[in-house]
Amino acid sequence: MNDAVRTPPRHAPRSGFPEREGQLTVGGIPLARLADRVGRTPFYAYDRGLLDARVAELRAALPQAIKLHYAIKANPMPAVVGHMARLVDGLDVASGGELKIALDAGGDPREISFAGPGKQTAELRQAIAAGILINIESFREVDQLAALCADTGWPARVAVRVNPDFELKSSGMKMGGGPKQFGVDAEEVPALLAAIGKAGLAFEGFHLFAGSQNLKAEAIVEAQCKCYELALRLAADAPSPVRFLNLGGGFGIPYFPGEQALDLAPIAANLTQLAERAAAELPEAELVIELGRYLVGEAGVYVSRVVDRKVSRGQVYLVTDGGLHHHLSASGNFGQVIRKNYPVAVGTRSADGPTETVSVVGPLCTPLDLLADRMELACAGPGDLIAVFQSGAYGASASPQAFLGHPAVVEVLV
Amino acid sequence: MNDAVRTPPRHAPRSGFPEREGQLTVGGIPLARLADRVGRTPFYAYDRGLLDARVAELRAALPQAIKLHYAIKANPMPAVVGHMARLVDGLDVASGGELKIALDAGGDPREISFAGPGKQTAELRQAIAAGILINIESFREVDQLAALCADTGWPARVAVRVNPDFELKSSGMKMGGGPKQFGVDAEEVPALLAAIGKAGLAFEGFHLFAGSQNLKAEAIVEAQCKCYELALRLAADAPSPVRFLNLGGGFGIPYFPGEQALDLAPIAANLTQLAERAAAELPEAELVIELGRYLVGEAGVYVSRVVDRKVSRGQVYLVTDGGLHHHLSASGNFGQVIRKNYPVAVGTRSADGPTETVSVVGPLCTPLDLLADRMELACAGPGDLIAVFQSGAYGASASPQAFLGHPAVVEVLV
Repeated sequence: MNDAVRTPPRHAPRSGFPEREGQLTVGGIPLARLADRVGRTPFYAYDRGLLDARVAELRAALPQAIKLHYAIKANPMPAVVGHMARLVDGLDVASGGELKIALDAGGDPREISFAGPGKQTAELRQAIAAGILINIESFREVDQLAALCADTGWPARVAVRVNPDFELKSSGMKMGGGPKQFGVDAEEVPALLAAIGKAGLAFEGFHLFAGSQNLKAEAIVEAQCKCYELALRLAADAPSPVRFLNLGGGFGIPYFPGEQALDLAPIAANLTQLAERAAAELPEAELVIELGRYLVGEAGVYVSRVVDRKVSRGQVYLVTDGGLHHHLSASGNFGQVIRKNYPVAVGTRSADGPTETVSVVGPLCTPLDLLADRMELACAGPGDLIAVFQSGAYGASASPQAFLGHPAVVEVLV
Repeated sequence: MNDAVRTPPRHAPRSGFPEREGQLTVGGIPLARLADRVGRTPFYAYDRGLLDARVAELRAALPQAIKLHYAIKANPMPAVVGHMARLVDGLDVASGGELKIALDAGGDPREISFAGPGKQTAELRQAIAAGILINIESFREVDQLAALCADTGWPARVAVRVNPDFELKSSGMKMGGGPKQFGVDAEEVPALLAAIGKAGLAFEGFHLFAGSQNLKAEAIVEAQCKCYELALRLAADAPSPVRFLNLGGGFGIPYFPGEQALDLAPIAANLTQLAERAAAELPEAELVIELGRYLVGEAGVYVSRVVDRKVSRGQVYLVTDGGLHHHLSASGNFGQVIRKNYPVAVGTRSADGPTETVSVVGPLCTPLDLLADRMELACAGPGDLIAVFQSGAYGASASPQAFLGHPAVVEVLV
């Protein structure tokens, strides 16, 4: 065996939260000072400089014709959404609750779209009152919107969410292909378009979303090409020209050892070609990609404080005040089949000092409450701060915060 | 192959929520009427009659000498805890937040105990101020309690939570044996007892907890015997006689097809023997079993309303207003390696009418949001109510309620 084989897989290199004088920094602030400023632990800190940098990087790589949307489900903290609303071209929401956050954040209703397989009547009414774009996901929604428009006198702006006849390969989650609760099967879309036309709803375009958390550029390129082709085919049956074409997202970030950052170059090259084709083939269409995790995931860190250091039968445990109740994904219990460690560091110790193999656990009475399983970390004890990286998306809002009666987590935008 | 082999495994029979005139009932109330009384869906309904019946069944089976504690982590709804506080002999809490609920519910502080691997200073102070029993889980807690007692003048009542040198076989989760963050390794307990004596803390006994969600009576019997033997051995080094001996719980309930209800008889027979031995060998000790899920899990049902019925490529989806944001465990995403269906029924249709194979999904934009995967259910459509059984424990409080901005779930005690 050569060295490459023997070396265990490592987490992708990280530049976002540099160490200074033996401490991690967030937005230039040493972590211990930030914790004092927040006033208590645990907390999530999101770095607005990193949010800016990620959007700038995308803008530099992608053709100008491609519009960037932020899917606020990834991180609905109002301050984050407010910041993102000024950086991107539109916001995507998944519920009436998220719609409120998007509007409060100053999102332009013309550039807000709403998707979700079980939209309720009250939510559809909110959506038409706000004047946002509704991604229709069933024939029922056409009937309901027609009735609501008749009742209120407000027009409904609609796009069709399509369940494609293919899958996004190598995705963390498959959102299209085969039978799905999302969208309308591609082969049913012509009939749906006819119903939309007949109901007098204002048709604007298509939303196609094949999967999420994908680190293989070639799989994303292939899905985007297929989405474009499918939309082009479906456009033939549309009651009016396509003005909006959401090609989905699916851009992943590296969480686990051995994963590498997504290579944007081939995706940018492909989107340039698609934008050129669209200029000729769908001349009124705006091409949109919808990103959540990719925009905010790497800009956030989850910080908890070590309460106890215990040694049990030779294994060292750092028991912290944070855990799965705040960060279910990092504990490995949210849709993961095999638990792997997120990148974790002791934020108040230099990475160059002495280290030991430790497990970082939370305060809950369950073995599921595990933030790091036998990782090599700087030696630490009570009072030290533990940082879990890659925590800007699907953290606080995607965790069972009431579990076992501990305080809710604080979120700060730095 | 014979018939027994060919028949797919089924959910254990259910008696708790009988059908009357084509509808499920909760505490005698037809489900549609209960939903109107609650005022909105989704909701959890817990049946106090079933809570009473479960405790009565245990009291009838177990020897009188065995005390029953309720671990409120299983369901911390204040009304449920208030009801349970009047039925059982004590309450177990896992945080300062749960301690507040237990005290508010009228729990007698002498019969409340507090366990958890990362107790914070403020929580320990709350505990001694309340006068409850603290299950010590590390040497640090001895030092902290001694300092707090000196500071406040209040005595600390303590027991030792032991990490046994064996595991509870066939458990849903292993809470003891090998290296663990819970308790103190059995071999370290004599030194801890010496430290407790030296610090002048009031020693009362031991807490041993080997695992949870176990459906094999013989495994529970074996673990209780071993726990007793270990406690007896450790008692030799105690600074004062053992007055409290918590043998843990681990009693499971049948969730998935093929699982059968736990057989109480062998457990009761064994506890009778242990109680007789304890009367001679640990004459001052009260024997306690600590149950959470077993007391409340089968008394609860999660109810959501069908918003849409969609057919995608031949598969029927009932899209409801409830899902994983309220009931993470039923979606298969909380510590389960392989997703299996909880028992589910259409609560507003007779089980004897026409049926079809359907998947019940929630409103979230993720394929994880699945309450039933291709189950044979009564034919249903928008407006019908879906009931997920075995939902009285680790439901509302163990779910990411803020996920995707939908309203929080309502809980009612009927």
